[in-house]
Formats: sequence, structure tokens, C-alpha cells
Amino acid sequence: MGMTMTQKILAAHAGLDSVEAGQLIEADLDLVLGNDITSPVAIHEMDKIKGDTVFDKDKIALVMDHFIPNKDIKSAEHCKCVREFACKHDITNYFDVGDMGIEHALLPEKGLTVAGDVIIGADSHTCTYGALGAFSTGVGSTDMAAGMATGKAWFKVPSAIKFNIVGKPSKWVSGKDVILHIIGMIGVDGALYKSMEFTGEGIANLSIDDRFTIANMAIEAGGKNGIFPVDALAEAYMKEHSNRPYTVYEADEDAAYDEEYTIDLSSLKPTVAFPHLPENTKTTDEITEDVVIDQVVIGSCTNGRIEDLRCAADILKGNKVKKGVRCIVIPATQAIYLQAIEEGLVQTFIKAGAVVSTPTCGPCLGGYMGILAANERCVSTTNRNFVGRMGHVDSEVYLASPAVAAASAVTGKISDPAELGL
Amino acid sequence: MGMTMTQKILAAHAGLDSVEAGQLIEADLDLVLGNDITSPVAIHEMDKIKGDTVFDKDKIALVMDHFIPNKDIKSAEHCKCVREFACKHDITNYFDVGDMGIEHALLPEKGLTVAGDVIIGADSHTCTYGALGAFSTGVGSTDMAAGMATGKAWFKVPSAIKFNIVGKPSKWVSGKDVILHIIGMIGVDGALYKSMEFTGEGIANLSIDDRFTIANMAIEAGGKNGIFPVDALAEAYMKEHSNRPYTVYEADEDAAYDEEYTIDLSSLKPTVAFPHLPENTKTTDEITEDVVIDQVVIGSCTNGRIEDLRCAADILKGNKVKKGVRCIVIPATQAIYLQAIEEGLVQTFIKAGAVVSTPTCGPCLGGYMGILAANERCVSTTNRNFVGRMGHVDSEVYLASPAVAAASAVTGKISDPAELGL
Repeated sequence: MGMTMTQKILAAHAGLDSVEAGQLIEADLDLVLGNDITSPVAIHEMDKIKGDTVFDKDKIALVMDHFIPNKDIKSAEHCKCVREFACKHDITNYFDVGDMGIEHALLPEKGLTVAGDVIIGADSHTCTYGALGAFSTGVGSTDMAAGMATGKAWFKVPSAIKFNIVGKPSKWVSGKDVILHIIGMIGVDGALYKSMEFTGEGIANLSIDDRFTIANMAIEAGGKNGIFPVDALAEAYMKEHSNRPYTVYEADEDAAYDEEYTIDLSSLKPTVAFPHLPENTKTTDEITEDVVIDQVVIGSCTNGRIEDLRCAADILKGNKVKKGVRCIVIPATQAIYLQAIEEGLVQTFIKAGAVVSTPTCGPCLGGYMGILAANERCVSTTNRNFVGRMGHVDSEVYLASPAVAAASAVTGKISDPAELGL
Repeated sequence: MGMTMTQKILAAHAGLDSVEAGQLIEADLDLVLGNDITSPVAIHEMDKIKGDTVFDKDKIALVMDHFIPNKDIKSAEHCKCVREFACKHDITNYFDVGDMGIEHALLPEKGLTVAGDVIIGADSHTCTYGALGAFSTGVGSTDMAAGMATGKAWFKVPSAIKFNIVGKPSKWVSGKDVILHIIGMIGVDGALYKSMEFTGEGIANLSIDDRFTIANMAIEAGGKNGIFPVDALAEAYMKEHSNRPYTVYEADEDAAYDEEYTIDLSSLKPTVAFPHLPENTKTTDEITEDVVIDQVVIGSCTNGRIEDLRCAADILKGNKVKKGVRCIVIPATQAIYLQAIEEGLVQTFIKAGAVVSTPTCGPCLGGYMGILAANERCVSTTNRNFVGRMGHVDSEVYLASPAVAAASAVTGKISDPAELGL
């Protein structure tokens, strides 16, 4: 029996010729990631594991992004703890206010995640880097601690689901619609502890930013990881951003998959996940009643990249955010922020009546920068719409693409860009 | 006995030919201001005063600026309360996420504060509008409630201190240094319940933004208000921003002043207020030991205007924020933010390694967007450095001009721009 792409990467990092689903292995890590919420816990655990050393100061990334610039004394103390740890161990890839961004946008941009890597991160959306053909997955803070100390992690080798991507998406359909469609189809536990392996000629019609969005939300279907094959586009991205060597792994032709689905991109429509689960999806043409909104958030590790901002700006240009709606745009990294200014996108947002924040995870997880009161509704390009995710337990979050989010900001209700004649 | 400029404005608004210091009067209000912290309290008090009506929907300004985009559920609920009130009473000048800014920068920019006005605001830095020759002062939320209901407020007519401004400041000396110098000289209660009336030929050498900064911090000397004469520069500003008629009041030649000081701008040096009071001032050449810092904040109602950003950008251009220092720049309004982009200032900040936030009061009052941990030090262009003002009670805030703040961001310690050869 052949191996999936994920299994091949894991086998290579475990020093094994082959692995099979269900097998327990210990794999070498190329990168261990933590943020300002999860790293302090890991740091406190370090002493219990292997004393006061790290396995490789170049292979740990500590990204302050959830609550910075610090939202309160507690978050300031957390960052201080990580800052002191990074200083003490001379951690190469420590990112703080200034040289900053949302971790899952920042690390690929900085060239720290490439094809063939095994990456763990104490953040559930660590699966993002599968867009470049890496195995990456979220872990808890104690696994992060063990990873920082030993450079290894144990895994149960996942089985896989194959998604055969065909066709080409229409204008306002993007990666977010693809992954929301899939989650709507298989459910939030549809890929529980499995690899979501994407393949097929349709992938050529998905930009790298689309793929980041899709891989990012693999966890929202319960996936252990999401992973894309490495094509010319992915290679070009890595060559532009990284000087690290990368290794391309391909699934064997006889690899076993628990299930296979074909996703025809040309048949997809703008899709929205209604409260309170990402699987509660409707295409915009299935929404029969007005869903009036109070807030729109465009950003996050899911949809805060330059293409996302371009898309939102295309829709907001010459339009105005509806009176009574707060529209918050958050470029995911400082580089994206600067690029968005140079392309005139930030100017478009401000002229439209949106506000543009410094990079932060902020509102996505109910951190700050757009928390909801009771009975408020938000259309958000983020990744989770659980009860109370963005604030009050009686608030509602609707997950959507930047296109739908921007169109909704203009109309004041959940809207397809087509409603604006676009 | 003649009247001061302040007394003349109050007399006119009380329908009296003259008033004298200590007299209790009731004056008509041209504007009643509240923000997202103080307005909810006032709104809850409204019913107790005059039922459910406002005196004039055009003469109330409600500015959501301290904790927005909302930092937590509580602040979201507060904003929601004000939003509903504004909607119910059709308040003309309600400012929320989008058409937003820090109140004391926003209202003059929107043309809502002009010479001769009597303005109360439930925010201590309401005294800012004295830069344009208005009488404006901070009040509590209950006075704000009474003002919204009746359009009137009672005052004890203040006596005054005269500051005779002469000379011209050197390159890196700005309004912030002028007011810090004055507070250092007379102390934080040096003008308790008094008008700080500025006069003299040197005022022509102070820009409108300088004057806003100076009037803004009158309260930090205990002043009831700070006020400038209306010259051609002030008139030009008002004509550019407002279509409201304004009235110019001049102090009588025989007006009585409790004290008189002459401030020679040419003798002033960049000045820093050390913890934990604005009166603890030293000029940069009096700072003999390195004061190593963790954070720099450039913004606030005191120093978040376009000239402040230009000054900071002049210093940061081609330089880098010192490793280990977080530099947070906050344009005070959306219009200033856009202007700063159009002038390339935001780009300069990002390239230097600073972060640029959406307009908010945030860090100044320990709200969010840059809260300090224990033992951290911040150089800030804000207005107060009380114990715990920006976070932990064991943190320290050093008040300075945008020039000193930017220079300090580069060196990592409190610095005069001259240290950079500028």
C-alpha cells in the first residue's frame, strides 16, 4: 500500500521507509511555533521537561500577535515573559510589535515554512502551511514545550481524505468559499484527525493566498492537516520568500484514502457559514431573508493577505460602508499593510468609511479590536463562528469571503457582490 | 475692572453685561460632548433630570474613541448604549467606527468648535478647543447629562493667569515642550480652577496644532480652561473646517490676572515629564543618566495631529526603531490617517519598524493598544504619567513631544533629536 503526501513527509522525518495510518511515530521538527497566548504556558513547562535549553534557536518561532500591541496588563505580562525567554535563548525568529504580523501569514512570508517541513504550532490554525506542501498541525502548549526542548514530537499517523479539485472558480468565488463549501459538505468533524489532501488540475486555478485560506481551515473540519501538492506557483512563492531548501513529496498512486470527493470550482457560489458552526453553510442565493449586520471584519490568518484586501477594495472602491455598520480591516502583516498602502487599498478602505488596524488576531477570537455586544451580528472573514467567539454569547458571527464581507459592509446585510452590480 | 477673555465669553453666554471671578452663573452651551466611557453614565442619568429629551440634537457630540473598535464585551455594551441613544434622539454628531477619531482632534476638524463657544465635555481634555478662542472645559457625566437635557451649565467664573508668549522656538521645540515647561514651572495645581490665558507676539510662532497641544494640557496644571486669542491663523483654520459663525472675544486691557508669566519660546528646550507627574520636568540636557525604554507611543488628543506625525516621520525616516522597543503610532482621526498616508508618513513609520493603529485613545489611559507590564518604561506623547496610567502600577510613563518620542524610539533611551545629528 502506498503512502499519502502527509505520510511520506512524516516517514521521512521519523527516519522510516514507510508509515501507515494509525502508527505512532516520533518525528523531527523543522519548526516549533508559539504565540503570545500559548508560549507563556509552554515556557513554564520547559523546566519540567529538559531544563533550560532549546533544541535549536533557529527552529523556534515566537510570534506576538493575538493581543498586541498589548490590550491589558495580563497580555503585557505574557508578552514580557516570552520576550525575556526569546532574549535569554537568543531565539532567531522572535516577532514583536514592529516586525510583526499574524503568525500564519507572517511565517510563510518570512520564508520559515517550506515544502516537506514538519511544523507544529501551539495554535490550531498552524495547518495553514500545508498550502506550500508542508505537514503542519496545531498542538497544545505542553507539546510545544516538548518540541522546543527536544526538536521532536510524536504523532499518530493520520489517514486521509482526498479532494480532487477541478474547474475554475467564477469571479467572486475564492479559497474561502471552497473551504466553507467543503466544511458544509463533510461537517466540522468530517475529517477528524485525518489529512485533507488536495489534488487535481483545478488547483492551478487557486492562488497561493487561496490555498493558504483553504489549508488554514482544515482544522474547522477536524482535520489533522490540510495539504496541497507543490506546483510551479508554490515553488515560485517559496523562492521569492525563502532561502531554505525544500523537498517535494508526492502521494503514491496507490495511496489509500478513507474517502474521495471531487470539488468542481466552477459550480461553487459565494458561501456563508451561519452561526454557530462553520458547517452551517448557505450559498448567498440560498439566503432568503435579510440578515442585517452591525459589523464586518476583514482580516485574520484566514483572510488578511494582500489578495483578500485587493478583493475587498475592489468592492469598497467608490462605495461607502453603510451607516450603522462598523467595518474593520486588518492587514495580516506589516509587509501586507505596506503593500496595501502602496497599492492604494488602505486609502480606499478609509475613504469608504472602514477603519484599518495594525496587524493583530484581535477580533477573531474575541481578543480586542471589534468585540460584539449582545444581539450584534458580524460578517467576518475569520475562521470560527462558535457561540461567543467574537464577544457576547448572544452575538452572532457569519463566516464569509472578503468579497461577501465587503459587499455586506456596503449594503448593511449579508450580500453577494452581485447585489452591487459587480 | 475689566474682564478676561474667558470671562467675556461666559458673560455673553449667561446674558450678563459683566461677570467677575468667583461669581456663580448659568451659561448657555454651544456643544455638549461625551465619549464611550462617559456618555453611558450620562445617558442613564438623563431620565432623572428632564425625562427623555435633549435640548438640541445638533449641539451634542458623542464620540466613540476610547475603547473602539471595542476592546471587550463591556466596552461593546457601552458603545451600544450610546449608539441606541444617538439613534433614538437623532443626534447629528455621533461618531463611531468609520467616521471616527479622538474627540479633541475630531471636533475641531469637523468644524464643531469655534471661537466664542462655550463647550462642556465629559472628558478632562475638553479644554483643547481653547486653542481656537472657545471656552471649553471638562465636566463629569452628570453635568453632561444636565447639559444634554437643558443646554445649560453652571459655572463659578474663574480668575486667570496670563502667559505672555514671546520669541520663536528652535527646530525641535513644539507646543508640547511649551506646556510641559509651564507645568514644570507652576506645578500640576498651579492653575487650579483658573483660566490659563495665552497672549503675546510669540503666539504667531505657534502653529494651530501647537496651540491645541498647549490648551489640551491646561488641565494638567489644574486649569479650568486654556485659551488663545484668535489670530489670522486661527481664523483660517476655522474657515477651512467650519461653516459655523464664530465670535472673537478679547480680554480687556484692565482685566485682572492672579499672576503673569512671560514664556520666551526661544529659550525653551525639548522637555520631558518624568514619572509620575506632568510637573516632574527636565529638559533633555538635564537628563544625565540613560533612561532605557521599552515602548514609545506617538498619538493621543495631545499629539496625534498631522504636524506631530510629520515631526516624528522626519526623525524616523531612514532610521530604524531600536530592537526591543515597541513604537506605536496612532493618527488621531481618520482624516489625519489618510493625510499621513498621502504624505508618505505612515509608510515611513512602517518601514522604520513602528506600527500604525487605527485612531483610538487606547494606550494613553491604559485602555488597550500598548499596555505596559511591570517595570516597563514608555516615552509617550500623551498627557498624563500618573502611577499605572498606561498599565501596571510598576510601569513608568515619560511625557514628551513627538520629536523626543521618535528620537527615543531610534536610540532606545530618552533622547533629544540632536543625538541623531538632526
